[in-house]
Amino acid sequence: MRAFVVLLLVLGAGQAGADSTQELPTDRPLRVGFLVVDGVYNSELMAPYDIFHHTVFHTEPGMEVFVVSPNGGAVETFEGLRIAAHYSFESAPPIDVLVVPSAEHSMDSDLENVAMMNWVRRVGKKALYLVSLCDGAFVLAAAGLLDGLESTTFPGDVDAFIERFPHLAVRRGASFVHDGKALTSQGGAKSYDVAMYLVDHLYGAEVAAGVGRGMVIDWPPPGDR
Amino acid sequence: MRAFVVLLLVLGAGQAGADSTQELPTDRPLRVGFLVVDGVYNSELMAPYDIFHHTVFHTEPGMEVFVVSPNGGAVETFEGLRIAAHYSFESAPPIDVLVVPSAEHSMDSDLENVAMMNWVRRVGKKALYLVSLCDGAFVLAAAGLLDGLESTTFPGDVDAFIERFPHLAVRRGASFVHDGKALTSQGGAKSYDVAMYLVDHLYGAEVAAGVGRGMVIDWPPPGDR
Repeated sequence: MRAFVVLLLVLGAGQAGADSTQELPTDRPLRVGFLVVDGVYNSELMAPYDIFHHTVFHTEPGMEVFVVSPNGGAVETFEGLRIAAHYSFESAPPIDVLVVPSAEHSMDSDLENVAMMNWVRRVGKKALYLVSLCDGAFVLAAAGLLDGLESTTFPGDVDAFIERFPHLAVRRGASFVHDGKALTSQGGAKSYDVAMYLVDHLYGAEVAAGVGRGMVIDWPPPGDR
Repeated sequence: MRAFVVLLLVLGAGQAGADSTQELPTDRPLRVGFLVVDGVYNSELMAPYDIFHHTVFHTEPGMEVFVVSPNGGAVETFEGLRIAAHYSFESAPPIDVLVVPSAEHSMDSDLENVAMMNWVRRVGKKALYLVSLCDGAFVLAAAGLLDGLESTTFPGDVDAFIERFPHLAVRRGASFVHDGKALTSQGGAKSYDVAMYLVDHLYGAEVAAGVGRGMVIDWPPPGDR
């Protein structure tokens, strides 16, 4: 599986593991907040949501997952599903892992949404980890959260990403890139990879393998064993 | 990728292609109805939902996707998201492709839900295709819709499936099985495979490759080229 071969190269280049897993809380779940806005893509939201949610069946205290919309109201996904939010920007609890799935306007009008960008910047600075899926990388980049870090985004939008953020180091062809506290994924069906990797990184291969069994994902990836 | 190798074996055994693609409507989208109940699993719903939805960007008229809950009200997914339904059993339009994602109680109490089982049986008999993800196969099987067909389900539940439905031919180790009008998938992250396959089957490899590009899925699968 090419994606993981590339991941290994990324790991080999020493860009992963620069974060501090020792900061994980042990007396409460790790709080994983997903930013959802109208036009959010189902898969980019659901794939990491499920992987992180299922940690609670394989470790304690695991992760608490929730979705945050700007005003706390429901959002309509790109594919036409209406999903209720758990919190608004104002009511959301402190977030340890901020996840930004792509949305229809992640590359344009969402970036002009001052309230959203301020929230992402503020929450993202405090978070232990940042995860973007697909064009969610545009949101992290526009918030300045990818400065000095290597990253990636949806393959078809890499050129636009480089053009908009010429100061960033961008990698093509990797399922995801982990640098510092940022994990940026190509998105789509590849959105599982980055989430599985983070679970392994935080909780170990046995927990990740357990989550993988429930999600019909071989872990470690066959090529890595 | 093992999943697709096994698929090829299944195809080679002549179990696919027994359906009638010539019946596809050309003057309207193919109506793809997803059964959703409380406890439905996100990925098993979203993966095929996205693949089928994205057909409209690559072919005409493509597929119209919608979710149907028993009473038309919102459902809470296993992972804790609240999703509004487009239709109730009563208000749903005729369904060409019935999709049954797994839910928390697909193996037990859902099968005792007479209204649900009657609806699945009635709609399933008329549908051109049936797609189950993970334990959704229990629902199709209990409705009698897999009689005489080979099928599969979530790997960890294959033994229970065989025990409950000893008259069925069950295959282990395949990402999905296509026999007659039924496509049954292991579920989880593998839920994309069966949907991509059906898109290819109905609309051809070029359309499937287009959908795949948007979902960061190589199509045809690398091992098949």
